[in-house]
Amino acid sequence: MPHDCSFLTEILPDAQVSFGDSDRDDHAADWAAEQKQTGVTPDAVVWPESTDDVSAVLAAANDRGVPVTPYAAGTSLEGNAVPEYEGISMDLTRMDEILDVRPDDFQIDVQPGVMGSAVDEAAASDGLFFPPLPSSGDISTIGGMIANDASGMQTVKYGEVADWVLELEVVLADGSVISAGSKAVKTSSGYNLKNLLIGSEGTLGVVTRATLELEGRPEQIRGGRAIFPTLDDATEAVFDAVRSGVDVAKIELVDDVSAMMANDYLDLDLPDTPMTFVEFHANHGIEEEIEFCRSIFEAHDVDQFEMADEESMDELWQARRELAFATRSWDPKQLPIHAGDVTVPISKLPDIIRYAKELGEEYDKTIPCFGHAGDGNVHYSVLVDYSDPEDVAEGEEVYGKVVERAIEMGGTCTGEHGVGRGKRQYLELEHGADSVEAMRAIKRAFDPKDTLNPGKVFPETADGERVRAKSDD
Amino acid sequence: MPHDCSFLTEILPDAQVSFGDSDRDDHAADWAAEQKQTGVTPDAVVWPESTDDVSAVLAAANDRGVPVTPYAAGTSLEGNAVPEYEGISMDLTRMDEILDVRPDDFQIDVQPGVMGSAVDEAAASDGLFFPPLPSSGDISTIGGMIANDASGMQTVKYGEVADWVLELEVVLADGSVISAGSKAVKTSSGYNLKNLLIGSEGTLGVVTRATLELEGRPEQIRGGRAIFPTLDDATEAVFDAVRSGVDVAKIELVDDVSAMMANDYLDLDLPDTPMTFVEFHANHGIEEEIEFCRSIFEAHDVDQFEMADEESMDELWQARRELAFATRSWDPKQLPIHAGDVTVPISKLPDIIRYAKELGEEYDKTIPCFGHAGDGNVHYSVLVDYSDPEDVAEGEEVYGKVVERAIEMGGTCTGEHGVGRGKRQYLELEHGADSVEAMRAIKRAFDPKDTLNPGKVFPETADGERVRAKSDD
Repeated sequence: MPHDCSFLTEILPDAQVSFGDSDRDDHAADWAAEQKQTGVTPDAVVWPESTDDVSAVLAAANDRGVPVTPYAAGTSLEGNAVPEYEGISMDLTRMDEILDVRPDDFQIDVQPGVMGSAVDEAAASDGLFFPPLPSSGDISTIGGMIANDASGMQTVKYGEVADWVLELEVVLADGSVISAGSKAVKTSSGYNLKNLLIGSEGTLGVVTRATLELEGRPEQIRGGRAIFPTLDDATEAVFDAVRSGVDVAKIELVDDVSAMMANDYLDLDLPDTPMTFVEFHANHGIEEEIEFCRSIFEAHDVDQFEMADEESMDELWQARRELAFATRSWDPKQLPIHAGDVTVPISKLPDIIRYAKELGEEYDKTIPCFGHAGDGNVHYSVLVDYSDPEDVAEGEEVYGKVVERAIEMGGTCTGEHGVGRGKRQYLELEHGADSVEAMRAIKRAFDPKDTLNPGKVFPETADGERVRAKSDD
Repeated sequence: MPHDCSFLTEILPDAQVSFGDSDRDDHAADWAAEQKQTGVTPDAVVWPESTDDVSAVLAAANDRGVPVTPYAAGTSLEGNAVPEYEGISMDLTRMDEILDVRPDDFQIDVQPGVMGSAVDEAAASDGLFFPPLPSSGDISTIGGMIANDASGMQTVKYGEVADWVLELEVVLADGSVISAGSKAVKTSSGYNLKNLLIGSEGTLGVVTRATLELEGRPEQIRGGRAIFPTLDDATEAVFDAVRSGVDVAKIELVDDVSAMMANDYLDLDLPDTPMTFVEFHANHGIEEEIEFCRSIFEAHDVDQFEMADEESMDELWQARRELAFATRSWDPKQLPIHAGDVTVPISKLPDIIRYAKELGEEYDKTIPCFGHAGDGNVHYSVLVDYSDPEDVAEGEEVYGKVVERAIEMGGTCTGEHGVGRGKRQYLELEHGADSVEAMRAIKRAFDPKDTLNPGKVFPETADGERVRAKSDD
């Protein structure tokens, strides 16, 4: 149901508000859109340029019962930033200033619309970098990463985005502005609002400033590619490397199907067998660490294990880097359904991938699997013919079975892309009804009128309604 | 005001309930008691032996409006576990089982009453350890560490306790049992209840089971002690080592006053000048790292820098290890007031210590400073004559000035001991009124009757009342 958003022109200059179809359509999709995860078109788009703008829009919208869905680069995969109930799309990309760099404290203050790669660039002149940057870091914003608690290839060594956020400025649904966290690297002062807000997908507040922690750039960086005869060899090799404590900065798995697609897409002269991609960071002893890794890979029958220095490793990594495009381009009649991720305890990595492959055979579906294997994090999709509703339904079924198995294994339905609306139905299965009710209680306490990003994270209630304050029931 | 707790005998066997004076008095103090941080005596003490016991007691107490204050080893410094409003002290120390060790996943499941050192012992046979253990790890419980978001000497390399907790089972005020977090090492599924509950000091729920992450034991461990001519040299050396990216596992500072007390207490033949204590962990290249550190210390005029291997480093570290006892034993007429901690951004470490020393001169007070300097974490106390009320009042004033300056510097009023009641008055100064109100909103949502550990974390409201639901006002 559309909302009257004409009040926005009294709050913001004309250049910061649009009711035009083109702008509204631009904010009705994210990367999941091509996988048929579409939402509704917002009634208006606003581009705040300051914390005050964000606060004023939220206060007014909240007063009027108009939903506000924060939006940035639109690279999410679970519909996280796409409106479900019209209202206002709040586009944060104009708040893209780097506010301060404090190299002595390994800290940088940024606005939410800053691209991840811009943080790395700003840090580089002081010999620093932002370790948890996701693979999409050059096209996604810090605000979006914080909202979805993103992580990346280097999470296996350095942790998630959440681990590198020290302090946040956040505007709540009623327009009030709070601070969460501290510029001290450790604190036990009061409730940890910072980590509660990180990953809350814009349902509790809008981040308007973040203090991030940086790390000194390692003196030695080496990258490599290992090719294995079978998928079991590759997954067992990754598990064994992690269990043995090999100090990898990245350890990525590409299964045989994905390898075939990448080889085809890039016209590479490589066997269509599973690969792992590794990167090592160290100040001393990187050769010893690489040899340690090699000895483990050899115990798992590795066919080839090539290493390169930082300048020339790009070529070795090409098949991994282009994978998302390769799977999408392989066959126009076989497109990925719901390309998300699950994470399991590392010992279960071989099992979850084996299970996905068995389902592929049982249902006669192509299921490329790849991802940040060192964390037990598997990205997979099921390829279907979108013109065939039965094929799509089967694909959804297979996709869901892998999620459910991951949860059974003690894992999570979403490792790094948030819940959005794509994974809402798994929230209770993963956490239990009482845990989800505790999350709802927080939502009601922070946003009693359900102004912020309604329809996300939480499964629909029995009456099909949004997450409402109990008093509104 | 005492509460009728006779209902407890209907819930628990006799051996798990006590109304005796001795048991009640045992639960009316923590380590801060000797610093005059005393609370009130509970009406009853219970020792639950299962999640069901915890749930049954909480549900019944919540129904009857009887406060419940969780208690474990009693090693906290801010009165965190000491009742403010009588009621029930819930002693978790009998829930002390190690439930499962999964070395392949680097995971261990424990009950809350397990001692920190027991986790390390259980992990050792698989070559693993629990890195964030506080110095008090052999006399404090995992549940207490989680409740206060504790950290330790190795936090500078490995992070806080919170960073090593994967999943929690928690009983809420109404007796419902929730799960928070995941056994997957990364997740972006739903709100981060786990990190909200960690550090909430038993005001939101009672932890009844924790899955902790473990780390592989490094192959090389070396420890050392550096002696500096002046305090500025020592603090600048620590700052420079951290800024330069020296990979230390521990880097502790002991100021000249503390050094003098430790030398006196242990009858050591060392100069009464500032020291730093370091430890290095590596699989390769530990000598190179030590030499890197040495070059930085030498640039700050270090007088002595001795290193030892793991077996013999105990002797080098003796002055640091016995420091808490040394400061307490130095002069029976000069006892520490409020021995807590603050943390500042690392670049401010020299400034905050210099400020404390200036105050010492201005007020003619002895102020020993030491702590986990690599994190910018300073432990300090002001020595006073407890028989002289004016001296005590002045000591409190000086103590508070350092806290306030730390907050001004972007730091925190409590780095690793929580707020309890000792730091309540600084919560709004540090976080702002709206942030504290957001914390209160969570408290009201989780515990509307203020059953769990009332009177902690939050400053008293204007009417002197506890944190109550708005509807109760």
